[in-house]
Amino acid sequence: MRTILVIGIGAGNPEHLTVQAIRALNEVDVFFALDKGASKRDLLALRHEICERYIEKERTYRFVEVQDPVRDEKVAAYDARVDAWHGERVELLEQALRDQLPEHGTGAFLVWGDPSLYDSTLRLLERMIARARLPFVYRVIPGISSVQALAASHRITLNQIGGAVHITTGRKLGEAREQTDVIVMLDGECAFKQLPGEDYDIWWGAYAGSDDELLRAGRLSELSEEIERVRAAARAQRGWIMDTYLLRRRA
Amino acid sequence: MRTILVIGIGAGNPEHLTVQAIRALNEVDVFFALDKGASKRDLLALRHEICERYIEKERTYRFVEVQDPVRDEKVAAYDARVDAWHGERVELLEQALRDQLPEHGTGAFLVWGDPSLYDSTLRLLERMIARARLPFVYRVIPGISSVQALAASHRITLNQIGGAVHITTGRKLGEAREQTDVIVMLDGECAFKQLPGEDYDIWWGAYAGSDDELLRAGRLSELSEEIERVRAAARAQRGWIMDTYLLRRRA
Repeated sequence: MRTILVIGIGAGNPEHLTVQAIRALNEVDVFFALDKGASKRDLLALRHEICERYIEKERTYRFVEVQDPVRDEKVAAYDARVDAWHGERVELLEQALRDQLPEHGTGAFLVWGDPSLYDSTLRLLERMIARARLPFVYRVIPGISSVQALAASHRITLNQIGGAVHITTGRKLGEAREQTDVIVMLDGECAFKQLPGEDYDIWWGAYAGSDDELLRAGRLSELSEEIERVRAAARAQRGWIMDTYLLRRRA
Repeated sequence: MRTILVIGIGAGNPEHLTVQAIRALNEVDVFFALDKGASKRDLLALRHEICERYIEKERTYRFVEVQDPVRDEKVAAYDARVDAWHGERVELLEQALRDQLPEHGTGAFLVWGDPSLYDSTLRLLERMIARARLPFVYRVIPGISSVQALAASHRITLNQIGGAVHITTGRKLGEAREQTDVIVMLDGECAFKQLPGEDYDIWWGAYAGSDDELLRAGRLSELSEEIERVRAAARAQRGWIMDTYLLRRRA
């Protein structure tokens, strides 16, 4: 029986690794990577750095990159498009696990942030289990998410006293207008521009927690354009950006 | 100038500590503890265990327990009651920092879970800064929250594909009826009983991520009574409970 570990590696700072994650790294024979797009090279480099730093010298392990399929933009509905894409990924992943991982070996996915938040690895494994073609056991190791790195760098709490926090995507920010405290992830379009800037404060961060972090905090109306500019420049320079922000409606 | 570190120590498993947190622990001269109630003894024991395990043998450090004031239940409004209580805590903390921490020393608060989520340490420090009587600098180190430990133990994602997640308290669950994915923290009353159990699945956990974790997952209508019973028994046995859960409305 193969073992799969899904290990949260934090938000870009190698010191986000937990002791539990380091222990798990040291059990792994093959690391599988599923990245795509512009961030791929940097994320792979970070994973290599983490493994070199935390895995005992006498252990041998290797990396397998799984070619990620391209989303079929002809499928118009977002959910259906993602669903079809995940189906292809499951197929490719299962093949990689069968071909590259020995039958009693331990494979791992190193997940940026925390595996429970806006990451598809667990969903892919569940689909693989539902197909029941390749038996395996798996465990999940939590990691520091970019939301927590953002909060720590700004030294803020996400919730107000006894209050709720809403986590959503840029795409769905419009549905969160009644919320007073909203965390936005996966926002490529600066969705905060939709909101009345005088009514909100924003705490924004890119690459938060890492050496390259960029932070801005203040009245949304005063920062909206600046954040858009800083974000575009950082993305152009680095080739990719990982940013998130908290919006808090003013009392 | 005094330095204060606010260090997230995870949700009860000493292996939740990050490398960054361990590095921070090794800078500390005095650990301040603010616990109260029945969990106090166990939480203090966990902190001592963490320090013994992760701090270099040649370092000297000590613990200072700050007597936590009792909330004045005569103040009827929840926010006002908490506010008055925090005012007293600020007073006591400031005195402890002045008396117990040398002027160029480093003090720390070891925070259960992550300092950004339902923890008052950062709010107390901000109030101390607003009073401007005791100058200090401070840093925050993120930690694995009980929500992440819950998700990892159940091997679930908190969000559905592209969807939002709402984090709230037992007290405010009633305001979250329109949400499909709700995480509930600080619920002493089993607030899930208010919901139509046929319409929801629940993933519940107490002491999640630790050796003593208790987990239940399934249809809310089938688990509601069992969770209430298990929770009461665990609380009676241990003297305190730390539990959290995800509710997901069925499609």
